[in-house]
Amino acid sequence: MKTKVAIIGATGYTGVEFLRLLLHHPEVEVTALTSQKYAGLPIGQVFPSLMKTLQITCEELNIEQISKKADLVFTALPHKTAMETVPLFYRSGRRVVDLSADFRLKDASVYERWYQKHTASDLLGESVYGLPELHRDKIRGAKIVGNPGCYPTGALIGLAPLLKSGLVSHEGIVVDSKSGVSGAGRDVVLESLFCEVNEGVKAYKIFAHRHTPEIEQEVSLLAQKKIGITFVPHLIPMDRGILSSIYVQLNRKMKTEELLNAYQECYEGEPFIRIYPKGKLPNTKDVRGSNFCDIGLSVNESGDRAVIVTAIDNLVKGASGEAIQNMNIMLGYPETLGLEVIPLAP
Amino acid sequence: MKTKVAIIGATGYTGVEFLRLLLHHPEVEVTALTSQKYAGLPIGQVFPSLMKTLQITCEELNIEQISKKADLVFTALPHKTAMETVPLFYRSGRRVVDLSADFRLKDASVYERWYQKHTASDLLGESVYGLPELHRDKIRGAKIVGNPGCYPTGALIGLAPLLKSGLVSHEGIVVDSKSGVSGAGRDVVLESLFCEVNEGVKAYKIFAHRHTPEIEQEVSLLAQKKIGITFVPHLIPMDRGILSSIYVQLNRKMKTEELLNAYQECYEGEPFIRIYPKGKLPNTKDVRGSNFCDIGLSVNESGDRAVIVTAIDNLVKGASGEAIQNMNIMLGYPETLGLEVIPLAP
Amino acid sequence: MKTKVAIIGATGYTGVEFLRLLLHHPEVEVTALTSQKYAGLPIGQVFPSLMKTLQITCEELNIEQISKKADLVFTALPHKTAMETVPLFYRSGRRVVDLSADFRLKDASVYERWYQKHTASDLLGESVYGLPELHRDKIRGAKIVGNPGCYPTGALIGLAPLLKSGLVSHEGIVVDSKSGVSGAGRDVVLESLFCEVNEGVKAYKIFAHRHTPEIEQEVSLLAQKKIGITFVPHLIPMDRGILSSIYVQLNRKMKTEELLNAYQECYEGEPFIRIYPKGKLPNTKDVRGSNFCDIGLSVNESGDRAVIVTAIDNLVKGASGEAIQNMNIMLGYPETLGLEVIPLAP
Amino acid sequence: MKTKVAIIGATGYTGVEFLRLLLHHPEVEVTALTSQKYAGLPIGQVFPSLMKTLQITCEELNIEQISKKADLVFTALPHKTAMETVPLFYRSGRRVVDLSADFRLKDASVYERWYQKHTASDLLGESVYGLPELHRDKIRGAKIVGNPGCYPTGALIGLAPLLKSGLVSHEGIVVDSKSGVSGAGRDVVLESLFCEVNEGVKAYKIFAHRHTPEIEQEVSLLAQKKIGITFVPHLIPMDRGILSSIYVQLNRKMKTEELLNAYQECYEGEPFIRIYPKGKLPNTKDVRGSNFCDIGLSVNESGDRAVIVTAIDNLVKGASGEAIQNMNIMLGYPETLGLEVIPLAP
Repeated sequence: MKTKVAIIGATGYTGVEFLRLLLHHPEVEVTALTSQKYAGLPIGQVFPSLMKTLQITCEELNIEQISKKADLVFTALPHKTAMETVPLFYRSGRRVVDLSADFRLKDASVYERWYQKHTASDLLGESVYGLPELHRDKIRGAKIVGNPGCYPTGALIGLAPLLKSGLVSHEGIVVDSKSGVSGAGRDVVLESLFCEVNEGVKAYKIFAHRHTPEIEQEVSLLAQKKIGITFVPHLIPMDRGILSSIYVQLNRKMKTEELLNAYQECYEGEPFIRIYPKGKLPNTKDVRGSNFCDIGLSVNESGDRAVIVTAIDNLVKGASGEAIQNMNIMLGYPETLGLEVIPLAP
Repeated sequence: MKTKVAIIGATGYTGVEFLRLLLHHPEVEVTALTSQKYAGLPIGQVFPSLMKTLQITCEELNIEQISKKADLVFTALPHKTAMETVPLFYRSGRRVVDLSADFRLKDASVYERWYQKHTASDLLGESVYGLPELHRDKIRGAKIVGNPGCYPTGALIGLAPLLKSGLVSHEGIVVDSKSGVSGAGRDVVLESLFCEVNEGVKAYKIFAHRHTPEIEQEVSLLAQKKIGITFVPHLIPMDRGILSSIYVQLNRKMKTEELLNAYQECYEGEPFIRIYPKGKLPNTKDVRGSNFCDIGLSVNESGDRAVIVTAIDNLVKGASGEAIQNMNIMLGYPETLGLEVIPLAP
Repeated sequence: MKTKVAIIGATGYTGVEFLRLLLHHPEVEVTALTSQKYAGLPIGQVFPSLMKTLQITCEELNIEQISKKADLVFTALPHKTAMETVPLFYRSGRRVVDLSADFRLKDASVYERWYQKHTASDLLGESVYGLPELHRDKIRGAKIVGNPGCYPTGALIGLAPLLKSGLVSHEGIVVDSKSGVSGAGRDVVLESLFCEVNEGVKAYKIFAHRHTPEIEQEVSLLAQKKIGITFVPHLIPMDRGILSSIYVQLNRKMKTEELLNAYQECYEGEPFIRIYPKGKLPNTKDVRGSNFCDIGLSVNESGDRAVIVTAIDNLVKGASGEAIQNMNIMLGYPETLGLEVIPLAP
Repeated sequence: MKTKVAIIGATGYTGVEFLRLLLHHPEVEVTALTSQKYAGLPIGQVFPSLMKTLQITCEELNIEQISKKADLVFTALPHKTAMETVPLFYRSGRRVVDLSADFRLKDASVYERWYQKHTASDLLGESVYGLPELHRDKIRGAKIVGNPGCYPTGALIGLAPLLKSGLVSHEGIVVDSKSGVSGAGRDVVLESLFCEVNEGVKAYKIFAHRHTPEIEQEVSLLAQKKIGITFVPHLIPMDRGILSSIYVQLNRKMKTEELLNAYQECYEGEPFIRIYPKGKLPNTKDVRGSNFCDIGLSVNESGDRAVIVTAIDNLVKGASGEAIQNMNIMLGYPETLGLEVIPLAP
């Protein structure tokens, strides 16, 4: 019998991506979709791409009803709303993978510095940071998984092997990320209009993006020491994809091949990590629509500085795909179930 | 046991699309890929999007070898080369789905007017025009299927219900098509450079595009009378998709709803045709990556003229997807096998 | 002494385009900008592209104040608002070039069928349809110029030589237009979001676009007989540009060269019309940022049908550039003053 | 009397950009264009955007002939070819602004490490690095100007105030640049095809891009000490623009406002530098088509690290516009002549 899942907040870009992926998951059935805006409408009317593939009608969010219909719940709500909703599902015994920022940060005071008052801080101890490549074991038994932000996913997969192995200086780490526009969601704002974004590129929220504390929490865990990073996001005229270029100082001289070996070793057996050979570098286009995180890197001639580049699809490995990967782990399914999607290129 | 298939000319955009789709086909195994340019290279090195998903190395085209490895062959070669290659597979008893223009036109003299001398015209009688929605029964037993061009697919699916039912005048039919750039293939030519295409739109080959005789052959069959059409292709700055806007004069006055009913009836049970309700129109974005052909239409107030709009992904329903649909029919598999791909949106 | 002009509604895309062009006009000085939304802000803060080029602050619309500051007024307001504002300037003796639809249609009842009640219909007789290539003489003395819509500009320049010369059938004329996204303005709506538009193409408002009556009014004038056309607009993923493909039945057999000659003759001396030689077709990219309208065409082999293609920049020849051309005519300046802008390519 | 200039290699993207800008230059006349590929063709046939604006025919490169026709020569040739051509013009007494890499590096051995043997190293002493904001005085009298690379222009304008003032550590400087596709020129290569570039972003030539030694030469001059930088270029799906994000460690704690003041002071009076107020950051879209270099920056909370972002149009300030700026300086014209172009937005 299939596991029943509900998607709360189903009509953003992560919502439609959940459906695209889950409809091919052999062990899961989507039994409920909620949407404040589109309640009452069949999902195929909200997203014509889903016509003739799925016959579910969006409904209003009713915790009791949804809890009856679903064993596991994906919450794709804005932060704050998530914090009010997730505890209700938790108390009704449903496991939750939450895509907001509300259950990612372990320290409520950090959350409150970057966001607002946390009204469910008692549950932060219950929640696990859902980056499978780092926390697979804890995710298995988690009641609440705080699914990582899109930028932190690419940054942390790129940084983890360096920090685990103590290969890099903790000072001066720079993460320069370039994101497609779907990362901003489906909110109707001037900044996301076609003519404002197309044929341009800009940095935004330098030193001020809310994914910064999330990256810093996890790199500090990896380094077993509180460390800071410089993180700057950029907006690129394309639908999907995040490329993160990571700049580090090496603690000892090495060659590109050596560093590649360290990455190969660290990610041995990881189904979604693809490491490029020397001289090749990833392109977000080659992961589009898939749950892959591609990695390429280079060490300079003098052997003391390295650049690591990671590429993900922000809506898949950076959101819905990673959430399904987490669900697979929580439910004891093979981790790749429903996620063996080959990238769409070109 | 799975059916073994080979892809001849595997390293163009239709080639990589075949692989993306066939890797999830439960009854088919890709056993050989040929490429003149990349022979000897693992496919994952040619297309990084395929890394870690498929371990096949491109080989040179050797008819004997490939015939041993494959029960059915997809030929994705330029016209002329196709005409020289397909007969060899045919004679070695292999069924072929050919993606070139060489086996689409029934009349060799028409072919020779638009292309060049036909050196395998004796096989034109063996070949079936591979548009399943029109020729499903003949495709079933075909030895050679001439897979339709991308433009004809969208045009013919849009025109068929009108012509079958005798609803439209045979005079003055206009097909105005807008195509993404992948339709031009992966050839390295000035006209396909990013900076030449991006932020512009143009018509090309007015009255002179080689897909014209193909459309005219099939509409004449449908109308049971030789008829001509005005077909103009346009190039649009996007990767994939063809939108065809079809302009016709109606033979009797009717309303949009009536015409929609005629389309519903004509395409009853067709798994890949989606007809939009009155007031809604398709967007190529909503079929991207899928084998769907979406249709919308409108009749004018006076009830005598109609516009029909069809949207396809030129690499799927307009090429590799349709070829796989044809293969499914030829092999007696459910027609949708391997093709239940949900569009990638956004 | 320079002529003083004001721009009413200066902070949409046509507003910023006015400024880009007028700042290089040797005989004109922009003395006032109004904006409901940005009143009080220097224009360089609204549009960073204008930083360091122009020091004007947006103000609220006050007819009396503006009339003191300006000899001629460009009104770039939504329809209905325009209808309320233009008469006030008219009565204060200011000449107006209005970019809304409110002063384009001669017949108030047609306006009311497509828009709403017309509250300034008494001024329709005063107003001239501002397509210089058709109405140059009347524009010269006009008090109010109704600047053409972007689609009508490209359609009418393409159709005029055919209708003037009686070369084409009045039946079955089709105009299939493809527009960049700036044509939809800077309104913050879901349909204009980057991820909704990018990598897709769609038709919209078939038989229902409000530019239809405007095109029909002018073609009927040219044909000296009431005629209808089929007009279908499409949205293309690019910032600027409209390509219009026009499909007609010829009244007598002719060759491409003959038809080209008719166009050459008709547009002899027109500074902004460029006619392509046989075998060449225009691309919107080659007019971007300029006031040119490029024309290419082809007649079919049997000589009875023709396709004409026109390319304009919707924000220049389709809006602000044409308005400045009208202003030059009204003020007796050389028509090309301030408009000798070379297209930006690539 | 106007100065006569020739453009050698006029049919690449920098060539057409020269023409777009020079046609409005009041003191300059373009008297010759050379093109190996298009010799004999009127330029309007090579670039339809230039139809009706300029009547010059491309010719083969003949040093003697060109020297007769032109007082100053812009050479837009590939490196190596430039090195063979520039000396010939030099010897015939013509001043040259060279857009290749051949006359930028002062140290022939550095050139030879990154490129190939230098056959005109005797002229390196004659040549001046053409970044006006750094070397205006020397440019004035120069016989040969080595016009900067596109990446170095944005990087150096961003770094100069920091290095001049001694505000930053010389260790660990990172320049992460994002470029539009026109930066790769008009060469017909697979990597520049629309479908290879669109909807993707990638890094390339990490630690290996040939603009690195050029940046290092100039920062070392500014710092009066040999220093290295980490420079990584990225390719972005847009036509024009380079955004450079520069990461530095500050030598003493400061606030964003203080650092902004240092930039204001350093670039006081510079006509093409626009500095954004605190909280605002540049977008390449807002400089498109213009010679501006926009700068924004931010210092972190602890005051020890800063990020500076610069935006240029790679074909204008990063190539032809800067070359014209250099020409104006060399000829004693006002520096902004012909370059007062307002950015095209959207």
